[in-house]
Amino acid sequence: MYALVEALYPICRSITGSGVRQSLALIGKHIPIKVTEVRSGTKVFDWVVPREWNITDAYIANASGERVHEFRDSNLHVLNYSIPVRKVLPLETLRSHIYTLPDQPDLVPYRTSYYEERWGFCMSQHALDALPPGDYTAVVESTLENGSLTYGECVLPGESDDEVLLSAHICHPSLANDNCSGLALLTLLAEELAQRRRRYTYRFLFAPGTIGAITWLALNEERVGRIKHGLVVSCVGDGGGPTYKKSRRGDALIDRAMMHVLKQNAAAPVVRDFSPYGYDERQYCSPGFNLPVGLFQRSEHGTFPEYHTSADGLGLVAPEHLEHSYQLVRTAIDILERDRLMINAQPKCEPALGARGLYATVGGDKNAAQSNMAMLWVLNFSDGEHSLLDIAERADLPFATIWQAAERLRGAALLREREPSRG
Amino acid sequence: MYALVEALYPICRSITGSGVRQSLALIGKHIPIKVTEVRSGTKVFDWVVPREWNITDAYIANASGERVHEFRDSNLHVLNYSIPVRKVLPLETLRSHIYTLPDQPDLVPYRTSYYEERWGFCMSQHALDALPPGDYTAVVESTLENGSLTYGECVLPGESDDEVLLSAHICHPSLANDNCSGLALLTLLAEELAQRRRRYTYRFLFAPGTIGAITWLALNEERVGRIKHGLVVSCVGDGGGPTYKKSRRGDALIDRAMMHVLKQNAAAPVVRDFSPYGYDERQYCSPGFNLPVGLFQRSEHGTFPEYHTSADGLGLVAPEHLEHSYQLVRTAIDILERDRLMINAQPKCEPALGARGLYATVGGDKNAAQSNMAMLWVLNFSDGEHSLLDIAERADLPFATIWQAAERLRGAALLREREPSRG
Amino acid sequence: MYALVEALYPICRSITGSGVRQSLALIGKHIPIKVTEVRSGTKVFDWVVPREWNITDAYIANASGERVHEFRDSNLHVLNYSIPVRKVLPLETLRSHIYTLPDQPDLVPYRTSYYEERWGFCMSQHALDALPPGDYTAVVESTLENGSLTYGECVLPGESDDEVLLSAHICHPSLANDNCSGLALLTLLAEELAQRRRRYTYRFLFAPGTIGAITWLALNEERVGRIKHGLVVSCVGDGGGPTYKKSRRGDALIDRAMMHVLKQNAAAPVVRDFSPYGYDERQYCSPGFNLPVGLFQRSEHGTFPEYHTSADGLGLVAPEHLEHSYQLVRTAIDILERDRLMINAQPKCEPALGARGLYATVGGDKNAAQSNMAMLWVLNFSDGEHSLLDIAERADLPFATIWQAAERLRGAALLREREPSRG
Repeated sequence: MYALVEALYPICRSITGSGVRQSLALIGKHIPIKVTEVRSGTKVFDWVVPREWNITDAYIANASGERVHEFRDSNLHVLNYSIPVRKVLPLETLRSHIYTLPDQPDLVPYRTSYYEERWGFCMSQHALDALPPGDYTAVVESTLENGSLTYGECVLPGESDDEVLLSAHICHPSLANDNCSGLALLTLLAEELAQRRRRYTYRFLFAPGTIGAITWLALNEERVGRIKHGLVVSCVGDGGGPTYKKSRRGDALIDRAMMHVLKQNAAAPVVRDFSPYGYDERQYCSPGFNLPVGLFQRSEHGTFPEYHTSADGLGLVAPEHLEHSYQLVRTAIDILERDRLMINAQPKCEPALGARGLYATVGGDKNAAQSNMAMLWVLNFSDGEHSLLDIAERADLPFATIWQAAERLRGAALLREREPSRG
Repeated sequence: MYALVEALYPICRSITGSGVRQSLALIGKHIPIKVTEVRSGTKVFDWVVPREWNITDAYIANASGERVHEFRDSNLHVLNYSIPVRKVLPLETLRSHIYTLPDQPDLVPYRTSYYEERWGFCMSQHALDALPPGDYTAVVESTLENGSLTYGECVLPGESDDEVLLSAHICHPSLANDNCSGLALLTLLAEELAQRRRRYTYRFLFAPGTIGAITWLALNEERVGRIKHGLVVSCVGDGGGPTYKKSRRGDALIDRAMMHVLKQNAAAPVVRDFSPYGYDERQYCSPGFNLPVGLFQRSEHGTFPEYHTSADGLGLVAPEHLEHSYQLVRTAIDILERDRLMINAQPKCEPALGARGLYATVGGDKNAAQSNMAMLWVLNFSDGEHSLLDIAERADLPFATIWQAAERLRGAALLREREPSRG
Repeated sequence: MYALVEALYPICRSITGSGVRQSLALIGKHIPIKVTEVRSGTKVFDWVVPREWNITDAYIANASGERVHEFRDSNLHVLNYSIPVRKVLPLETLRSHIYTLPDQPDLVPYRTSYYEERWGFCMSQHALDALPPGDYTAVVESTLENGSLTYGECVLPGESDDEVLLSAHICHPSLANDNCSGLALLTLLAEELAQRRRRYTYRFLFAPGTIGAITWLALNEERVGRIKHGLVVSCVGDGGGPTYKKSRRGDALIDRAMMHVLKQNAAAPVVRDFSPYGYDERQYCSPGFNLPVGLFQRSEHGTFPEYHTSADGLGLVAPEHLEHSYQLVRTAIDILERDRLMINAQPKCEPALGARGLYATVGGDKNAAQSNMAMLWVLNFSDGEHSLLDIAERADLPFATIWQAAERLRGAALLREREPSRG
């Protein structure tokens, strides 16, 4: 997973352009990706698909012609979506086109100007301060022309047409955590799920933030009702959190599954109520859709000092954090796949588990004790009202333990399946 | 406001009599007051309007004829509703007619005997202890005769016949906080509201505690259903609290408005569940009426040491506390006036706020950031289920901020009004 | 009560056999007991009534014929339900038939083997360590033969056929707290209730744990619907807790009554949600019955160090703890008997309590103040929606105080009774 983060990191992405296509090509080495191109000018709800932006070079040169700041060193060095420019101007005038972080003077900010035509550069405050007065040549060799917005999908059909939507934004350039990490996690998750029997159909969506999600929703409006569960994944490689932000509904199965998984598997999980700010859950959870889509992150966007700066590099992301994030998401998907309403076939008094060899004699064997308790919980609450996840929550036991107990009891004909009445 | 407190303070009020009429006359200099006189003996539910009490003088004189304690120094010095007396008696016998506060020996208590015929005086423990043995003449020049109970109303008609009831008791004599403060606050609030466009009709009621509220309810029983929101106001000039005691319903709009206002505007607000003890909310919230009427105070009655003593003087009340209390109540009234269910006109995805010039570019401008967030909250939750107050609570933003965002969005045709389905 | 604990303590009980019959005979000296014998082999739901176990002697003798460990010293010394044995074997082989508590080396464990045929002894670790190597004779003179399972019932008819079930397990041998204490408490409670007018019919059930409750439920299935409230009572003589474990329903009247009683009468009460492990509430609350039956204990089973060891002797149980437990249960029963929906006959404004002599003038008399407040609470909330227990909970006053206030108000015709709509 970390290798894929490394491969994605150097690409200069934006909300349109060749960077997105290159990234999808990398992802496409792991999983089948269907790429969709949507022409500039296409109306998508209240928005219009913008012109396509591409960039080949950008730099600031001093009077001697030396490049004192250039795009080739880092694609953060240019204002994302900067219009082309080639101009000689004194430092004082140039300053108004240079973005810095005075409070974090060593770092270069990540800045964009999608919907207002501007040209500019991003620089550390220290680098700006080091520029001597004089005339400078500012060059941005970019194009902003009719073209298309690009997104990629990987769909894994399941037993049901009901869908699980897993979505990551693919518009940020060299920011490792935000969101090479999310792209890599979902890519490898798709690779694994492709090998498994699937109750649900899985749709992985790699699209530029905001305008990409809006475009996808606009073009797939009639299909949206199939989405029964969903998760936006971003910033999943750092050491913070983990954090789950609930869907607007707040009590969707994905909300309960993620909260259960974080509670059972993380030392200090953070759970947030829905708010209308963040990543593309803003669009999925707009009131006209109100999809059951939550957001999974480690550190929360906007709260960690490296956020949207050059410090969000490969060093911020660690393989063990990526792996932990992956396990959390996959465990939640296990819950979506396995949660069911089961029915106790002998609901009057406890069945004689011991006589059936199901009840382990406990001699300090903690696993056996937990397994016994799990069977008692499953039997007592499999009354047609409580799903396996309900029971796991009530028992405060891992879902997997409850599910294994249910499987044993089903094997002994003490439990039978009922179709879930909710989803 | 403080000046009105000062003017009201010296008057000797009781549950009937000329003190109430004088107080209403003072209030009537600010706002139009309709005075109602209800004859002694009138049956009001389980009660009977009592005889009217008036007093001209009262004192205790020693054997030399010196007045050692007299009503003219403070109207607290006589037992409120004391029957007339003129009697010479030794100190030991007199003692049983003198009320003191042994635990607060410098203070004179406020005591009443409305429903049992007694005569008596109230004195500090120190003053009582200083009386030498001997004979004393006790004189109370009062009348207790058929007359009437007096209350005053100021009604400000609004667009709707639905009413907001604002009620303060007018029966306590020289107690500044309890309740010259409440009378003054409501008077000036009525003066301000009279100048404004009003969604609701406002009824300000200045009536003696308990029997006054009971009398009003008895005489206005058919009109009570118009009261959609209400607030009893007392003890609003001291430095404690502020305190809101919920209506019996507990989730009325006035409850939610006051709790929101206190949370947003007070450092350490106190919120109490309804209990059947306190001021006239006891009557408004009796089960046969169950009106949505709460109680607003600063310090809670009965809990501050000056309560019902001579220490509840003009020094206990401060202009800044009165002003803060006033702002809290007025802000709650703004919520009653402005809370509405709005409908997002473009509920699928976020609208392009930037393209409309609505989305302020944030550059450290905290107000702009809050305004942007407020618009996102309003758009996301204006789904026909959440009123503006619901949204303010969920967003944890001041109602005014949410309301301003809604006005901007309505101006841009992104939001339209729907009549509230609750009140 | 303690004397009955002392009398029950020495008897060697098990899930069947003469020990249960002797215990019921002792209880029968206080209250009429109907004894039921259910033949071995009877099918009861998923279980079969086991063969009856009786024991006359058991010991381990050394090579010299000296008894080094014997049943006569303590009936815990033999594995409960041990099959008969008479065998000479070396210490090393004998060890596998000896149960100890290595972590509590001074204590003898209580161990059973009801459903697997084993023979064995229980011993302190120190006693085992003190046995020199060599051959030993192991003797258990027991019988495991077709017979019956025995339980006892005491039914006190009430005005209604609706039943309150009070249940204690009678299968543990010399363990004073677990459950001679529960047996004694219920016996004396039945003795007291027999003298009282009863709204409900009371069923006291003394049956062996698990199999006894299952047998009773199987034989009384058609009668189970009459049980409106129920309590399992065990471990009520020690100094811990008190602890109430809610019924599976969680909001049954017995749950609310017990929680109210514990909150009002215990310094540090413990309340647990239902879990499917514990005593016979496991069976009563199995999903096919889901009876409103909770569990009352002082220390929670399994959590105190003396649990299921020889340390659970007469010294662990104290008369004052028994008495406190008794008062708690009886107070909860008072609530079951007295909780009602009352209707305020004059719901508009407060009635004139003073004029009726109901409103005590408060002069530092705390009881009078509480009684006044209780009347106000009862009047305000007797609206057909709130029972007396609802009001006691809301007022945070003892149920008895609320009930007395209601009786006074009923006496003054200010309150009338309505049949409760819930049970």
